[in-house]
Amino acid sequence: MLEARVKQAAVLKKLLDAIKELVTDGNLDCTDEGIALQAMDNSHVALVSLKLVAEQFESYRCDRNMPLGVNLTSLTKILKCAKDQDVVTLKAPDDADSLGLVFESPKEDRVGEYEMKLMDIDQEHLGIPDTQYDATITMSSSEFQRICRDLAALGESVKIEASKEGVRFSSEGEVGNGSVLLKQSAGTDRSAGSSSKKAVKRDPDEEDEEEIEEDEKPEIDDEEGEDEQDDEDRSKKRKSNGKSKTAKKAKKDESTSEDIGVSIILEKQVSLTFSLKYLTNFAKSAPLAREVSLHMSNDVPLLVQFDFEQGTLQFFLAPKVGWGLILTNIHAD
Amino acid sequence: MLEARVKQAAVLKKLLDAIKELVTDGNLDCTDEGIALQAMDNSHVALVSLKLVAEQFESYRCDRNMPLGVNLTSLTKILKCAKDQDVVTLKAPDDADSLGLVFESPKEDRVGEYEMKLMDIDQEHLGIPDTQYDATITMSSSEFQRICRDLAALGESVKIEASKEGVRFSSEGEVGNGSVLLKQSAGTDRSAGSSSKKAVKRDPDEEDEEEIEEDEKPEIDDEEGEDEQDDEDRSKKRKSNGKSKTAKKAKKDESTSEDIGVSIILEKQVSLTFSLKYLTNFAKSAPLAREVSLHMSNDVPLLVQFDFEQGTLQFFLAPKVGWGLILTNIHAD
Amino acid sequence: MLEARVKQAAVLKKLLDAIKELVTDGNLDCTDEGIALQAMDNSHVALVSLKLVAEQFESYRCDRNMPLGVNLTSLTKILKCAKDQDVVTLKAPDDADSLGLVFESPKEDRVGEYEMKLMDIDQEHLGIPDTQYDATITMSSSEFQRICRDLAALGESVKIEASKEGVRFSSEGEVGNGSVLLKQSAGTDRSAGSSSKKAVKRDPDEEDEEEIEEDEKPEIDDEEGEDEQDDEDRSKKRKSNGKSKTAKKAKKDESTSEDIGVSIILEKQVSLTFSLKYLTNFAKSAPLAREVSLHMSNDVPLLVQFDFEQGTLQFFLAPKVGWGLILTNIHAD
Repeated sequence: MLEARVKQAAVLKKLLDAIKELVTDGNLDCTDEGIALQAMDNSHVALVSLKLVAEQFESYRCDRNMPLGVNLTSLTKILKCAKDQDVVTLKAPDDADSLGLVFESPKEDRVGEYEMKLMDIDQEHLGIPDTQYDATITMSSSEFQRICRDLAALGESVKIEASKEGVRFSSEGEVGNGSVLLKQSAGTDRSAGSSSKKAVKRDPDEEDEEEIEEDEKPEIDDEEGEDEQDDEDRSKKRKSNGKSKTAKKAKKDESTSEDIGVSIILEKQVSLTFSLKYLTNFAKSAPLAREVSLHMSNDVPLLVQFDFEQGTLQFFLAPKVGWGLILTNIHAD
Repeated sequence: MLEARVKQAAVLKKLLDAIKELVTDGNLDCTDEGIALQAMDNSHVALVSLKLVAEQFESYRCDRNMPLGVNLTSLTKILKCAKDQDVVTLKAPDDADSLGLVFESPKEDRVGEYEMKLMDIDQEHLGIPDTQYDATITMSSSEFQRICRDLAALGESVKIEASKEGVRFSSEGEVGNGSVLLKQSAGTDRSAGSSSKKAVKRDPDEEDEEEIEEDEKPEIDDEEGEDEQDDEDRSKKRKSNGKSKTAKKAKKDESTSEDIGVSIILEKQVSLTFSLKYLTNFAKSAPLAREVSLHMSNDVPLLVQFDFEQGTLQFFLAPKVGWGLILTNIHAD
Repeated sequence: MLEARVKQAAVLKKLLDAIKELVTDGNLDCTDEGIALQAMDNSHVALVSLKLVAEQFESYRCDRNMPLGVNLTSLTKILKCAKDQDVVTLKAPDDADSLGLVFESPKEDRVGEYEMKLMDIDQEHLGIPDTQYDATITMSSSEFQRICRDLAALGESVKIEASKEGVRFSSEGEVGNGSVLLKQSAGTDRSAGSSSKKAVKRDPDEEDEEEIEEDEKPEIDDEEGEDEQDDEDRSKKRKSNGKSKTAKKAKKDESTSEDIGVSIILEKQVSLTFSLKYLTNFAKSAPLAREVSLHMSNDVPLLVQFDFEQGTLQFFLAPKVGWGLILTNIHAD
């Protein structure tokens, strides 16, 4: 049996808005760790991976693992019936053939009760390999969205180049060509001093990573006014299931000012080309989180990650490669 | 000859927006009591009845009764040429073949003069029988609009159930089903104490009804800060043409806070099903008035009523009945 | 070589929005005096003439005259990639086959570099004859836009009549007819006292015109709080290239209140009819300037002029004439 309570419907609505154009059907995999959804996009090019962490729900109970096959268009329709401030409770008995959703107004004078039919979806959970990325760019999610939208007016692909100078997005098409350079914010260059350490890993040893962060961007931590209480929070979360980073990022999102700089963790220079159509779609998640991180290595899929209070939303997209490179790869096999 | 002056064009624009999708042509019946329009909707399912009370105009003069046949689409076009704050004067000589509209800016530096061609419309005025309703629900008009819109995404019909607990709107469709329960606001349960009196009538004996209201919801009256001056207003209006209730409701709309509760006057439990397509259309009148009242009895058309400063807008809609029920009715005859 | 720096992308974006529906291709004629664009609209009925004055750029350098053939749709696409506050630099080497655009954020942490392909456009520069207009109406540009839009819902043409009383716009169509009268603001009637002087000329002797303005509307100048410093500004600009009026108007746009009256300089009464389709298009320039001036004489094209900080945008449109009038004219020849 599942019973999960989310404090504000707004989060779920934004999530659905973010992924419903990429994915139409998917299994909500409910376990005692939380709710996950993993799906290839409809054209089988991009991979979407959503994790909602059990501890970040208002209350969460899931007695045994169960996949709930949902049509995301239907779920979007039903979530539209909730007001942004409503408390949402998701309910499903074991072997449910429908998912119950209860929307309660904060004053409790309005209760919406909905039931959505579930479907059987044959879907294997893909193991996403841990990857050490050569470059990790953290930037404003709305700036990312804006750049994708702007360049999509020029061409179909964008080349993303990360260097010490900053990150450059460039595109070309019939009208002409264009590029946008975002300069790295002062005091956030983390590449020079960390040459002996691996930068960011997808399932990192927590202790280790915390050290890196505290060594290398003390000013930023100060700005956010993190104090003892925060450290407490952090250690609590560290016990949970390795999502302390998620929770911390989300905290940042709420407390810092409008101004989000660009920070780049650079192991080596990276230059990759991606379809703007997909990036523009990923960027629709901007309302979920003020920051987005782009994780890139040559020859591996780009990871675009949004960390928000309740969890993490990840998009993976393989780079576009020229014919020459593809042939080389084939010969290498 | 007609000459009627309306203080703000905004009211007329909202009225036209409210009904122009239901009704395309209709007679503005001008008398010394005011202007009325009554029309079946284009598919002859719903009835729209609008009354603008003579006293609520800035100035009003109508020497003899005359029907002005207007095309509401044209009238909407012309009213769009008025700014919301403009003073509107409607003018028609006897036997007019066009309606004059003058829009004056509050500073009088801008005068728009329009003439709209009139048409002959053969239309008999339907007598709407006085009905005593088993249940009268008063609620926020925007909440009503929201619920109709939400449920229309699920199904084609909505079942409205009024009970002491509150009012429940429910619908079902392919995606699943849903219901919204609005609980009655504290202190507004009027059903228990009034068992011997008929609850709400469409053309009620004023004295009697005032008594009921004053007995049973003193807290609410206090909240609205009604004082001697208000009582004076009320008696003035009582003299007019039985529309004191209208004027009072409109007063409420302006003076009370954002928070409109739900109040239910219940003679007996009612459960009726209606087409969401029509309700959604009626609900477009929400900008006219903060409150809407739903008047229901089993086997009679629903009355959805918006009371605003200048008058009243009523919509009537027959309930949907199952085949079983219809057959029963036939046998009963 | 051209290098021109504009302080805010917003101005260029508004300019493109204003003309891109009338004109698709055109030469940006770059000289040491500034950048000009002159083009017939696509249906060869209206003439658009834009002048951006060299002195009003942040910095401006143009070594030799060169026409840059641009597709305005493409330019609009590229300008959309600039944020409103970005500083824009236009760059073109001699014999350029592309125009460079650099967009820099005010904080300089974001640089967009774009290149747009140029095209060869065979276009002769039309000499627009200096005209003394019988009537010049200055009014709020948004009011002008509103009136064009309103009347376009009624009919296809608008008759504009300027008299001492004010200016009247009227139109008629199937639905009916309508007119809007804007009364001349108090204290701005300039026709009576200036009978011996020609009212407004297209390339006026500056000294002379300043006199007229100072004689006849002292109250307005006072309201705008023009002081010594302003006089200094004015004489500086007078030295430039006869555009002091432009700069002054733009100053007005920023400093005065929301309330723009109507002023009419009237040599003789004028009544002309124009296509609303074109006027509505011209009126799209309203975001560029708070005021618009309409210059009219019988039998000559209407001039609709927007003066903004960086320059002037002019639209010319021939009046519609009835068959009778045309024949008369032919006989007169």
